[in-house]
Amino acid sequence: MGQAITAAAASSDAVIYGACDQGDKPQDFIEGCDVVIDFSFHAATPPLARLAAEYGKPMVIGATGHTADERAAILDVTKVIPMVWAGNFSIGVNVLFHLVGKAAKLLPAEYEAEIIEMHHHSKIDAPSGTAERLIEQVLDARGLNRSNVQHGREGNIGARPQAEVGVHAVRGGSIVGDHEVLFAGPHERISLSHHAEDRGIFARGAICAGHWVTDKPPGLYNMEDVLGLRD
Amino acid sequence: MGQAITAAAASSDAVIYGACDQGDKPQDFIEGCDVVIDFSFHAATPPLARLAAEYGKPMVIGATGHTADERAAILDVTKVIPMVWAGNFSIGVNVLFHLVGKAAKLLPAEYEAEIIEMHHHSKIDAPSGTAERLIEQVLDARGLNRSNVQHGREGNIGARPQAEVGVHAVRGGSIVGDHEVLFAGPHERISLSHHAEDRGIFARGAICAGHWVTDKPPGLYNMEDVLGLRD
Amino acid sequence: MGQAITAAAASSDAVIYGACDQGDKPQDFIEGCDVVIDFSFHAATPPLARLAAEYGKPMVIGATGHTADERAAILDVTKVIPMVWAGNFSIGVNVLFHLVGKAAKLLPAEYEAEIIEMHHHSKIDAPSGTAERLIEQVLDARGLNRSNVQHGREGNIGARPQAEVGVHAVRGGSIVGDHEVLFAGPHERISLSHHAEDRGIFARGAICAGHWVTDKPPGLYNMEDVLGLRD
Amino acid sequence: MGQAITAAAASSDAVIYGACDQGDKPQDFIEGCDVVIDFSFHAATPPLARLAAEYGKPMVIGATGHTADERAAILDVTKVIPMVWAGNFSIGVNVLFHLVGKAAKLLPAEYEAEIIEMHHHSKIDAPSGTAERLIEQVLDARGLNRSNVQHGREGNIGARPQAEVGVHAVRGGSIVGDHEVLFAGPHERISLSHHAEDRGIFARGAICAGHWVTDKPPGLYNMEDVLGLRD
Repeated sequence: MGQAITAAAASSDAVIYGACDQGDKPQDFIEGCDVVIDFSFHAATPPLARLAAEYGKPMVIGATGHTADERAAILDVTKVIPMVWAGNFSIGVNVLFHLVGKAAKLLPAEYEAEIIEMHHHSKIDAPSGTAERLIEQVLDARGLNRSNVQHGREGNIGARPQAEVGVHAVRGGSIVGDHEVLFAGPHERISLSHHAEDRGIFARGAICAGHWVTDKPPGLYNMEDVLGLRD
Repeated sequence: MGQAITAAAASSDAVIYGACDQGDKPQDFIEGCDVVIDFSFHAATPPLARLAAEYGKPMVIGATGHTADERAAILDVTKVIPMVWAGNFSIGVNVLFHLVGKAAKLLPAEYEAEIIEMHHHSKIDAPSGTAERLIEQVLDARGLNRSNVQHGREGNIGARPQAEVGVHAVRGGSIVGDHEVLFAGPHERISLSHHAEDRGIFARGAICAGHWVTDKPPGLYNMEDVLGLRD
Repeated sequence: MGQAITAAAASSDAVIYGACDQGDKPQDFIEGCDVVIDFSFHAATPPLARLAAEYGKPMVIGATGHTADERAAILDVTKVIPMVWAGNFSIGVNVLFHLVGKAAKLLPAEYEAEIIEMHHHSKIDAPSGTAERLIEQVLDARGLNRSNVQHGREGNIGARPQAEVGVHAVRGGSIVGDHEVLFAGPHERISLSHHAEDRGIFARGAICAGHWVTDKPPGLYNMEDVLGLRD
Repeated sequence: MGQAITAAAASSDAVIYGACDQGDKPQDFIEGCDVVIDFSFHAATPPLARLAAEYGKPMVIGATGHTADERAAILDVTKVIPMVWAGNFSIGVNVLFHLVGKAAKLLPAEYEAEIIEMHHHSKIDAPSGTAERLIEQVLDARGLNRSNVQHGREGNIGARPQAEVGVHAVRGGSIVGDHEVLFAGPHERISLSHHAEDRGIFARGAICAGHWVTDKPPGLYNMEDVLGLRD
């Protein structure tokens, strides 16, 4: 991810002031930088967050897998510095989440929702985390719950309940990640989809979050804040 | 369109109280109905609107091609009765307009917009009216104007200006109407699309508008009001 | 289906010489016609076939659900008259079957096959008969069998076996019938798809078969023969 | 392209025996290798081809832009060694060419052809070379010519002539290359498409051609030979 961040920075007006890996000392760089971006290991985030707070530097966190204690330690510094902490930094994916929530609310319930995601053949779980979030967007917007989710269909399935949310995990080749949410209604369909070309989209979103967070008051933010998706 | 309205009513809880064609007298039916739906000829709308106003009946107008005088006469009755007057009654198409405006605003300008529409081989103009409205949604959201629109591309076109909105009119077979708005950005794409199966979608939207308008105060409304697309 | 045939005939240069339903006597029409098209009830096909053979008229059969005895009786007349007997008369679907077989054979095994079909919410079985035939085309072309078919995916699925054929049944709204076969390989994808607008495609194919069969020698034919798909 | 070839070789069982750039001497490596792959500069191909012929090594040529004299010199060595010379080495694209030719021939003329290609915003010409070849496949299969090609549509276009081949060049973002050929007929559509993830597909095809060509008799071959697309 470090390489992706460096490449993304190069195509924006951001400059990599310093890059730290395991064994490096972040304090060598932290004083001179404008924002600290962390895509490291879960255990590395709390000390880095304390260091950022000490120097009054805003922070962007993309590392995952934190324990409850680590989460508490990280959140603690948001009293002192602004922090963007997100599960998925892709601008497109976050906008898709927002639009899918809108569509699920605006379209009547007879516009039945189906989600189709596609990933490479080495992905060992289904559906994808992004698809899980899309499912939640639809369920929340329509007052439904997990019991309405249907993964795949085979045999004598009977008529489809209107509230069902069908989920389909396509796997093959080297597909980076495609997601489509289909609303199939009476004699028409609306489809919202996202196509990822490579994982650089996460780095670009992190750089975008870094630009955004520099002049914000202390507190916890996510990509919805960065992209202005609240309404 | 009369048949389509009748079919759409049958699949909702609406009842056709009376159906008038050229030569029929609408006053025979108007007293007992809850709402007047007009998909007739432009010259027929003003007298029908006056009749609806006289009996205090809400109105839904899908007829097109009115002259300036006819428009003034129609608008005049909105002091007395509520009226839904729209260019396209499809629920899906109207939601697409809304979502495309949102997406064009939320996505940075580097997510370049292209519009692809598909219709049957007998359609004699390009792009479609629905595509024109989609173009407007993108232009308005991004502060652009008509000079940014590019219809098709051939030859030594040079690099694409970021503000350009490409429009592509596919024609063939008996395609009822497909519209896609693509936002192609750095290493990812968002696509929003609508697929029409038949023209019954306009009738269904008109019935939906008829249900909505019955308890509204006098005034002029459109499908954005009916579908709650204002925000 | 009778109405669809009549409509399809009207848009070709075919003329409906006579149309029979339950209770009508086909012999009143059969002498003057060029070809007999049967989309009736399974029990009605054998006597109609015998009548066609008696008068030396070619036949197109789209009726389904015949018993073994009925099938034998029908096949018996192909010694005397030419007959097109097919499970699906759509020109496009039959060409898709052919192209999918070609693609599955030409593309190396690392171009992994996934089939996505979409139908309306009232369809009570999954996958569709057309999807079943597409599955067979892929299995046959690649020397695979039913054990390689995977319907939907959920949970800790592990890496996808290269020989797997994934099948996904999307259900919603009033979708008439979409079928896509995706071959996802290393850094590229090939997709072949069919979209049906309405069931008139079966009637058009039957009319097309009727034109084709009139000058053929006695024997049993199917849509592959009509469309020249043998090679 | 050298890096892409090296990466593609690594994921097959091929070994890079030697890699030459400008200034290197290919004779240092040529004796020990099994096949010579050339993606260099047009002027560099003829001397390299003569060297390959001298050592009896098969050759794969992906370099482009040769002059008539250079082409003659290159073809001359095919009397002595087998050579695969192709404009596009992608396996998927070559299979698409083949399938599109098939489809254009099998589907009646009323299945009207439209070609949609998508590339990144820096591409300065339209349509793409791959789209040009797809156009040729359709024209050749149907006995049409260049006068039937229509690039984009705008204004009062009138009804679409059945023989027209519409071509649409979508541009935006960082799209590597998508191509779709649509056959829109009466009440149904067939679509054949290719999606490229990155330019590594050309390297993989070159490696595939290298494996294939090693045991062939002297002569000129292309990707149709390598992939068995003749019939």
